[in-house]
Amino acid sequence: MSPMGPQLKFNADGLLPAVAQDGATREVLMLAWMDQEALRRTLATGRATYWSRSRGEYWVKGETSGHTQAVESVRLDCDGDTILLRVRQEGAACHTGNRTCFFTELRDGDVA
Amino acid sequence: MSPMGPQLKFNADGLLPAVAQDGATREVLMLAWMDQEALRRTLATGRATYWSRSRGEYWVKGETSGHTQAVESVRLDCDGDTILLRVRQEGAACHTGNRTCFFTELRDGDVA
Repeated sequence: MSPMGPQLKFNADGLLPAVAQDGATREVLMLAWMDQEALRRTLATGRATYWSRSRGEYWVKGETSGHTQAVESVRLDCDGDTILLRVRQEGAACHTGNRTCFFTELRDGDVA
Repeated sequence: MSPMGPQLKFNADGLLPAVAQDGATREVLMLAWMDQEALRRTLATGRATYWSRSRGEYWVKGETSGHTQAVESVRLDCDGDTILLRVRQEGAACHTGNRTCFFTELRDGDVA
């Protein structure tokens, strides 16, 4: 890391996409969004904290559902605009009750 | 899938984030962007095809570098706004020569 810290490239809304991956199974669980403060809180607390675009507020994953994400590592990509979390996921990551949000497979012809 | 096909929720720029994961090791390799046509081409050809926001053009991964991504599966998340690809990655996914773009670990204090 440079003495200046990492070069984070937030989008026009001040957000970065954050991919959460199960640290044990390596399953990709979900993608949510972080602003600088959500990322700072995630690093400081070890609890995955996102910015809810729909509710306009910080969202400690599992705070209401109990489906928490204990953070094992936080990585930044080469161009500084995407975060990868490895987490210990309690219960389902998805609000539908599925373990992962990515339960719908697309096939050729599904998209015009 | 409904008879109407999947409900894709593109962002204001007509794009979805697409996470590429190694199908064998489950390593998360990169995140890039797809519009509807890039997604259609990816499904039709089995070669990961993104929309380059910097160059403003379609980008068949590996077309120039040889570091192709043969698509094993394409999944959509629960709210229709993120794609997950499982790929067979030839060589390095990252333009830096790293296998994955996520080679920088962040720690508490790195982000003010």
